[in-house]
Amino acid sequence: MSFLQRSTRFGINSSQLALARSVSVTKVATAVPVDHGMKVCNPKTSTKRERVVVLGSGWGGFTVAKNLDPKLYDVTVVSPTGYFTFTPLLASTSVGTLEFRTALEPVRRLKNVNLSMARAESIDFKTQTVTLNSAVPSPATSSSHSLPPRAHNKAMTIAPEKHQDERFVVGYDKLVISVGAFSATFGTPGVYEHAHFLKDIRDARAIRKRILDCFERASQPFIKEAEIRALLAFRIVGGGPTGIEFAAELHDLITSDMKRIYPDLVGFSTISLYDVAPGILLSFEESLREYAMRRFSRDNVIVRPNSRVLEVGPGWMEIEGEGKVPFGLLVWSTGLEPNPLIKSISQADKDPRSQSLFTDNFLRVLDKETGEPMKNVYAIGDNSMIKDGPKLPATAQVANQKALNLAANLNNAGTEKPDTEFILRNKGSMVYLGSWRAIIDRTATNVSGPKGEVTGLSAWFLWRSAYWSMSSWRNRLLMSVYWGMNLITGRDISRF
Amino acid sequence: MSFLQRSTRFGINSSQLALARSVSVTKVATAVPVDHGMKVCNPKTSTKRERVVVLGSGWGGFTVAKNLDPKLYDVTVVSPTGYFTFTPLLASTSVGTLEFRTALEPVRRLKNVNLSMARAESIDFKTQTVTLNSAVPSPATSSSHSLPPRAHNKAMTIAPEKHQDERFVVGYDKLVISVGAFSATFGTPGVYEHAHFLKDIRDARAIRKRILDCFERASQPFIKEAEIRALLAFRIVGGGPTGIEFAAELHDLITSDMKRIYPDLVGFSTISLYDVAPGILLSFEESLREYAMRRFSRDNVIVRPNSRVLEVGPGWMEIEGEGKVPFGLLVWSTGLEPNPLIKSISQADKDPRSQSLFTDNFLRVLDKETGEPMKNVYAIGDNSMIKDGPKLPATAQVANQKALNLAANLNNAGTEKPDTEFILRNKGSMVYLGSWRAIIDRTATNVSGPKGEVTGLSAWFLWRSAYWSMSSWRNRLLMSVYWGMNLITGRDISRF
Repeated sequence: MSFLQRSTRFGINSSQLALARSVSVTKVATAVPVDHGMKVCNPKTSTKRERVVVLGSGWGGFTVAKNLDPKLYDVTVVSPTGYFTFTPLLASTSVGTLEFRTALEPVRRLKNVNLSMARAESIDFKTQTVTLNSAVPSPATSSSHSLPPRAHNKAMTIAPEKHQDERFVVGYDKLVISVGAFSATFGTPGVYEHAHFLKDIRDARAIRKRILDCFERASQPFIKEAEIRALLAFRIVGGGPTGIEFAAELHDLITSDMKRIYPDLVGFSTISLYDVAPGILLSFEESLREYAMRRFSRDNVIVRPNSRVLEVGPGWMEIEGEGKVPFGLLVWSTGLEPNPLIKSISQADKDPRSQSLFTDNFLRVLDKETGEPMKNVYAIGDNSMIKDGPKLPATAQVANQKALNLAANLNNAGTEKPDTEFILRNKGSMVYLGSWRAIIDRTATNVSGPKGEVTGLSAWFLWRSAYWSMSSWRNRLLMSVYWGMNLITGRDISRF
Repeated sequence: MSFLQRSTRFGINSSQLALARSVSVTKVATAVPVDHGMKVCNPKTSTKRERVVVLGSGWGGFTVAKNLDPKLYDVTVVSPTGYFTFTPLLASTSVGTLEFRTALEPVRRLKNVNLSMARAESIDFKTQTVTLNSAVPSPATSSSHSLPPRAHNKAMTIAPEKHQDERFVVGYDKLVISVGAFSATFGTPGVYEHAHFLKDIRDARAIRKRILDCFERASQPFIKEAEIRALLAFRIVGGGPTGIEFAAELHDLITSDMKRIYPDLVGFSTISLYDVAPGILLSFEESLREYAMRRFSRDNVIVRPNSRVLEVGPGWMEIEGEGKVPFGLLVWSTGLEPNPLIKSISQADKDPRSQSLFTDNFLRVLDKETGEPMKNVYAIGDNSMIKDGPKLPATAQVANQKALNLAANLNNAGTEKPDTEFILRNKGSMVYLGSWRAIIDRTATNVSGPKGEVTGLSAWFLWRSAYWSMSSWRNRLLMSVYWGMNLITGRDISRF
């Protein structure tokens, strides 16, 4: 075909490049012995630097990759999405308070870090290799539509047959396991098919569209009142911080923008929050929980503790002892279940209940047989816990601090500096409650600074400031613009 | 079900609202006689004001709705998307220079304008009613995914069976037909399935994801050089302003951000632009066309005139006399074909070639039998042309000016002011060429101000200023932020 003979564009000599490319791949293939019958492919190699492969690009993986010394390490992040999601802002983006991209940091933006857009399927600790499955199917044969929401869950657990396997192997000198966990459904039928999680930016986009769909549908002239009530019944299962913040942001959206745009409809809308436990925000101090309940009661957000969901269908869910209730949108946020990669690991010591990988205080994965640290394998974030240590929650704060500790220890290589054990510097927790009110629990904090509890407007201000200061300056600028603009003109309500 | 008995949320009395709602619908149903067996449903009514129904929310429909006097008219826009697309910025958003929402204006943001998110299927000029088909399916039974790209084309022409029919009827006192036109494929097989149009924001989003998919796929270690070249072969069919501007923006993306992120890959990428005509930008002055060709040649954008595409498949297209060439992305922009609604109208006088509705100089649709203006029916934008008038191009400028003329005439109602005939105030045309260069053709302009031709950096500056000044202040602010930020940090390259 004639296009193949054409001279290369953009002034780069193609044969040189092709050579450089193939050489680097071959070199690795001969350097690392594998018996998979698959070629070992590392994106770039350096004879001097150790290859660190980081599995996952969440709070743990992204942070460790960002902080490793590029003079010491050749870092490759393995991630099916290719970006870090700033999870505390997901609820804000799902109702249009912030544009989606303000909650994203692409791995490709990190200097001196390689990205392999793939899923890790299995680890061979003896040969120090990881088998990956490409997460980028051929665009010509795949649908031209956007990635489906929840693909990170469904592709693995529901519809593995849809994903065409294209496996390859990467070798590592050091491995960081930080693949996180999946949303738990406790086996409830229909959750994957009919509910929305809120773990990824694609979830947030699907939720945003669904909320606007519900209002638009309810405004069609042929829709009767019972159906309007069903469409505008927004239900949330899970009374942890994610569920609470989504309920709060949704309340803000409905009482401001939706009230302005659909004045005849907002009166039919309800927000209800269910939890199987006897209360919400159980990790918070009691006075803060009571404050949250008072705020929600004042804002007409219905809280239903002690509620067990038996089944979810299209537009309805069945609650034990109550029967079927309809919904326009159901957001499901009830905790975590283990990632399939973690399930597949048999050589490591794991927590029997959560299946998390046990590590020592230096975040090294422990061998199941010997109880000793495995060679060159580390685990951080929601897929791991420190054996015999205090039980730490599966939060961004813990994952982020573990990543910083691990990166600092790895950066000690070649120096006299001793490695430091991981100790959580508990900065407290905070949750947004809607109507410019938040709660901050710093009763358990072990760092300098203010202690105790904060509620209300000042807590809201601290809540926003904290997330603002944790973002890249690019996203800080965008957050400031969107927050300011939406205050004046309202949120963007176009659905596309 | 218990939720039905719950008291209404957000402090609005639901039974009052339900009553107000049903009354307004019933009133219209008795006021306008129809024999469809369908209830006539107008969203809101007022006994004093005339009901203007505007079909379409593009340059014509959105502008007329925005400018009608709400004291005189009760305006309802019928639109399957519910938003206005600022088409000149689509190419910019499709490569990430601007965020998608900067090219959107939701109809719901217009004060005193009702929206019916639906497609107009047929018009009964005698009873003054329009039959609509809801464009908002039930969210519970439809997929939770985003709207598919090109749904505005495919739903009507390729897959009508997928759309569940929910028809209803609206009555009008005055009707404005501004549904635009569809992208022409000239019957070329495979275009709908495998090429991308660039008419809607969903097209832009699909293209943006596809470009990043191609580069990510090409960077997977198991992809061979021939496939890399195929993936990074970006082809455009159509040498008009849309195709040219997309080629230009894509060139900018590749030579800046992609070069930084995929330095080993950009050397394999090509941009090729095909047209069946002997040249590109044929509506522009010859010296400007030559300037454009020189710029493209310098930027390694290949221009292939006199090329006829015979068929498009997944990842390839067949060109007459050349055979099959592969592509990673094919953007198709070859002109317009009539909207099905316009095809369905038999009582009106139409241009035999384009099937556009003929109007008089007051933009009134003409009766086929009598040649006289039909009562209360107007047509503007790409679905219409003035009979015996000068042939005007199907551009935003023409649609926008016709809409302003029509709104001004309609706002004369009840005054002594005479209606004015439409005369185009030709402000010239402009096209972006990449690398901060543009061309502006003001040789045919009939308004005060500078005449003649402008090229290069100054034309680029005028190009950006013009679109900036035509946007809402909300979008102006966003455009400024994104332009400034992307200049410093590069475009956002996360794909989700």
